[in-house]
Amino acid sequence: MAESLKSLAALSCPTPLTTRDRVLLGHGSGGKLSAELVRDIFLPAFSNPALAQLNDQAIVDINGTRVAITTDTFVVKPLFFPGGDIGSLAVHGTVNDLAMGGAQPLFLSVAFILEEGFSMDVLQRVVNSLKRAAADAGVQVVTGDTKVVEKGKGDGLFINTTGVGVVHAGLELSANRARPGDKVVLSGSIGDHGIAILAQREGLEFESAITSDSAALHTLVAEMMEVNSHFSQNRGEVGHPIRCMRDPTRGGLSSALNEIAEQSQVGIELDEQAIPVRDEVKGACEMLGLDPLYVANEGKLIAIVEPDAADALVAVMRRHPLGKDARVIGTVGERNAGMVTMRTALGTTRIVDMLAGDQLPRIC
Amino acid sequence: MAESLKSLAALSCPTPLTTRDRVLLGHGSGGKLSAELVRDIFLPAFSNPALAQLNDQAIVDINGTRVAITTDTFVVKPLFFPGGDIGSLAVHGTVNDLAMGGAQPLFLSVAFILEEGFSMDVLQRVVNSLKRAAADAGVQVVTGDTKVVEKGKGDGLFINTTGVGVVHAGLELSANRARPGDKVVLSGSIGDHGIAILAQREGLEFESAITSDSAALHTLVAEMMEVNSHFSQNRGEVGHPIRCMRDPTRGGLSSALNEIAEQSQVGIELDEQAIPVRDEVKGACEMLGLDPLYVANEGKLIAIVEPDAADALVAVMRRHPLGKDARVIGTVGERNAGMVTMRTALGTTRIVDMLAGDQLPRIC
Repeated sequence: MAESLKSLAALSCPTPLTTRDRVLLGHGSGGKLSAELVRDIFLPAFSNPALAQLNDQAIVDINGTRVAITTDTFVVKPLFFPGGDIGSLAVHGTVNDLAMGGAQPLFLSVAFILEEGFSMDVLQRVVNSLKRAAADAGVQVVTGDTKVVEKGKGDGLFINTTGVGVVHAGLELSANRARPGDKVVLSGSIGDHGIAILAQREGLEFESAITSDSAALHTLVAEMMEVNSHFSQNRGEVGHPIRCMRDPTRGGLSSALNEIAEQSQVGIELDEQAIPVRDEVKGACEMLGLDPLYVANEGKLIAIVEPDAADALVAVMRRHPLGKDARVIGTVGERNAGMVTMRTALGTTRIVDMLAGDQLPRIC
Repeated sequence: MAESLKSLAALSCPTPLTTRDRVLLGHGSGGKLSAELVRDIFLPAFSNPALAQLNDQAIVDINGTRVAITTDTFVVKPLFFPGGDIGSLAVHGTVNDLAMGGAQPLFLSVAFILEEGFSMDVLQRVVNSLKRAAADAGVQVVTGDTKVVEKGKGDGLFINTTGVGVVHAGLELSANRARPGDKVVLSGSIGDHGIAILAQREGLEFESAITSDSAALHTLVAEMMEVNSHFSQNRGEVGHPIRCMRDPTRGGLSSALNEIAEQSQVGIELDEQAIPVRDEVKGACEMLGLDPLYVANEGKLIAIVEPDAADALVAVMRRHPLGKDARVIGTVGERNAGMVTMRTALGTTRIVDMLAGDQLPRIC
């Protein structure tokens, strides 16, 4: 995720930080306030080529190997939710950020902040879940750290995972590579994670249970890379049909696409009817006044792909369990550079802006 | 630091966790309780060769390059203290963990957990300090993350830094490599950081101000490596006179040495009179009933070195500002395997056990 960095993209209406002298919950939203924080505080301090790309992961060179590094802290509340818990989420989130950079995830560090009085049994359950998720994803937890803060100075358990992986040879993925004509591919339905968390937190009950989509996407990405090579070979050149990938977590699909539109200085036009939203998620969103485009996902990805490779990519993705509902949901264009628009089911077109406030705090 | 892992070493009196079903502040101390947590919860879950070494950093192979990875979360209180702040400390602590593994620190990730309402000005000051410390240490902050938790669910600001570096060629440092006859070298006076934090936190005033020793040690280590190569060449073999290094942070000198004694299954005998403690730190410790052997340092290192290289190593270290008070403080022996003992100024010998409870919470 590392949304604090990537979310710089869609600052269509910059507000000076001087008007906000205190940290707000929205500064952690992955939306506009997060982007302000990055723009005004973090980027000026740490300018370097890897950071400046504002991707979800840094790609650095270590003795000729392209190594991806990404970090993410998990403060999700509650710790356990349908479809996962903070332990599995801490693995999936970081594995996915590596995968979105085209990297094979290899190593994780895990750092815990425990609140004094936290249940040792619950810690054990979280660690067991983290262990299973890491083993399933084929990543090794190689180092760790634990800090304890006094009762009332934390909230049970926070987890930071930092991941290291090796980028697939020859790949060049970045949010500034989208070009007019490219297609936007989405791997499956949106909104499941955010609604599952919210329902659990607020004790909401729906007719059918809503489950988080939390999952590690790197095996899906590995298969997508095959299409990539295939097309590259056919064209007899080094280029890659996949321009960039993102997992639409905090801030949802809208934030991820706004970032790409902004960084690539292109317009992205979505087709509302093509975007899969489960009926129960749609119903919950309507009831709660939420827009699924802004709700977090933890097991979905979007890929910007050259037009002539889109169908082949979707076909390959559909053979993978995590991509079985993959489809083209939009097109990259020249008009409305830096903006995301959507043709609605009613035939009108509306602007899909970046998340302004904080729709759902502590979703990951 | 990553003390949660390294502190497994000196569990001389294991207590089953079932008697402690809640997290205690002492579980973050870097002492026995931390070691229990690692032994009972973390190690069983994440067994792999890199983690099992229980060093302050994992050394992994990436395409033939030995890469060091280390993670540390900083919850120090107060955020600003004489000699540093949470920002500089977050750089020094992680840079030092890489350096202790014989690695050149290259890249850092930085992840913030902010409490709602935290001052944006204070955040800016911390980020500026972190920036300066990273620039001074020659490491790049390449990726980051920010989360915000509700007021009362955090404590202003916590920072995780995870570091990646490349291990100097041919080096093999590990806490299980100490051998009888080896010398224990300490780079300077102990206790400064812990006492500086405590004085600031409690509003204590001493005749002369006590300043944290927080500093990045990797340039000192780089010079120490030269001695290493020199001696290795003279002996015409691949071995290295430096067996292992540690920065005695949480849990102090006693915990770091107990870990080495335990992992190498050797005895370590210290000479109390050889261990430098500043007069003002000594006075503060006496007043507060603290033992400087257990007080945290953030800019000191210990090296276990082959006997015939000890003098040369000390001489090289003394030429560096951070090693100007370097000296041999003890010897590795066969007796009392797994234990640290100290010949006191009075001529008696006492056991220097690992920290049992939590002397000073939130020291880093």
